[in-house]
Amino acid sequence: MTFAATILTLYPEMFPGPLGVSLAGRALAEAKWSLGAVNIRDFAADKHRTVDDTPAGGGAGMVLRADVLAAAIDSVADDRPILAMTPRGKPLDQARIRALADGPGVTILCGRFEGFDERIFEGRAIEQVSIGDYVLSGGEMGALVLLDACIRLLPGVMGAASSGVDESFETGLLEYPQYTRPVEWEGRTIPEVLRSGDHARIAAWRKHMAETDTRLRRPDLWERHEGARVQSPSGARRQTKDE
Amino acid sequence: MTFAATILTLYPEMFPGPLGVSLAGRALAEAKWSLGAVNIRDFAADKHRTVDDTPAGGGAGMVLRADVLAAAIDSVADDRPILAMTPRGKPLDQARIRALADGPGVTILCGRFEGFDERIFEGRAIEQVSIGDYVLSGGEMGALVLLDACIRLLPGVMGAASSGVDESFETGLLEYPQYTRPVEWEGRTIPEVLRSGDHARIAAWRKHMAETDTRLRRPDLWERHEGARVQSPSGARRQTKDE
Repeated sequence: MTFAATILTLYPEMFPGPLGVSLAGRALAEAKWSLGAVNIRDFAADKHRTVDDTPAGGGAGMVLRADVLAAAIDSVADDRPILAMTPRGKPLDQARIRALADGPGVTILCGRFEGFDERIFEGRAIEQVSIGDYVLSGGEMGALVLLDACIRLLPGVMGAASSGVDESFETGLLEYPQYTRPVEWEGRTIPEVLRSGDHARIAAWRKHMAETDTRLRRPDLWERHEGARVQSPSGARRQTKDE
Repeated sequence: MTFAATILTLYPEMFPGPLGVSLAGRALAEAKWSLGAVNIRDFAADKHRTVDDTPAGGGAGMVLRADVLAAAIDSVADDRPILAMTPRGKPLDQARIRALADGPGVTILCGRFEGFDERIFEGRAIEQVSIGDYVLSGGEMGALVLLDACIRLLPGVMGAASSGVDESFETGLLEYPQYTRPVEWEGRTIPEVLRSGDHARIAAWRKHMAETDTRLRRPDLWERHEGARVQSPSGARRQTKDE
């Protein structure tokens, strides 16, 4: 079964865009995933093809109508999860990406303007997702990011050599720093341990660096990582308690 | 002065991509910002145009060479900040976006494969930035996101009517929910207060909803928001203490 992505958007011409190039583009050409972009405007009910209206209660911008959004969603409804890209959503993380990539695909609803009429989230089963704490001109960039993150994990896309298990967030930590040739560059040399050929020392150094960098750069991630260790039933501290 | 974006990438054909459409595309056509994409491969020193090599110490994937990256960076160096998109970077937020949009522009370094030789961050003044806690196939998607968030804030791009001050993150809170016509949809009506015409009640309801949704959906944001209030010298609690 191929991972199927359907985008509901006012700008279908944005797709595949950067997903038509490089890793994702090759995988698309090889039918390792499929992409459909549906224009929300095709589901407007009036002759002016109106999709939005002014915010109830006043304010700047325009709000996407619940009835038009529902018609667009209902036209593609199947067993795939429906995600809406919005800064009010749950922050996207690598665990959710892994779960989505393991599934049949996604339908992604992209907003523009001041966002969606809130009733669409009561009337349809939609997961609200945010890619980060900043505001974009629309959900399309978020959809591209989410798909890129999923596609690289699909079977056969990266190849067995790069399974991604060492990467940032897969272990709850940032990835360790990387180095490559030349051994010396502008007076800076590759750390000696990485040139030692001693695989155990290299693994220990990388683990130490991943932990140190996470603690210093991302205390929030580090706290969660340590919390998970303490709470884990197989964790050392719990064992000590039960002994 | 126009906001100038320069992208250092192995895939210059990904740009402007979605930034050539809609709001950002119109602003680009009107020269409200400028875009240049530079191919890192043009700075390889050998006849095979090699930009990467295997990771020192072993492991999957390829690492971008510091000498090639430095040559590419030095070719465009000016007074603009240089950002590298990497999951090891500082999480991007709306405050950083605002500051970048107020400046002369950005140079953005996009990685692929297993990332950058770490020495590039010692040898050049580079700000490492992450758009979220997930792994992408390269930095290009991150660059598109960062630029989209900046461009909409540039003078004349959104228009005075949508200054964005009510939006998510601008006040440290999520935005309140929005509604628009029809008044009734599938038996669900727009909240009465938004139809009351009472501007003070509407403002109070929106503030209450923004606070409630932030507390329930994003306890991390809420904690920071409350922390900032307590620590502010003009805050109510501090005044009480000094009375």
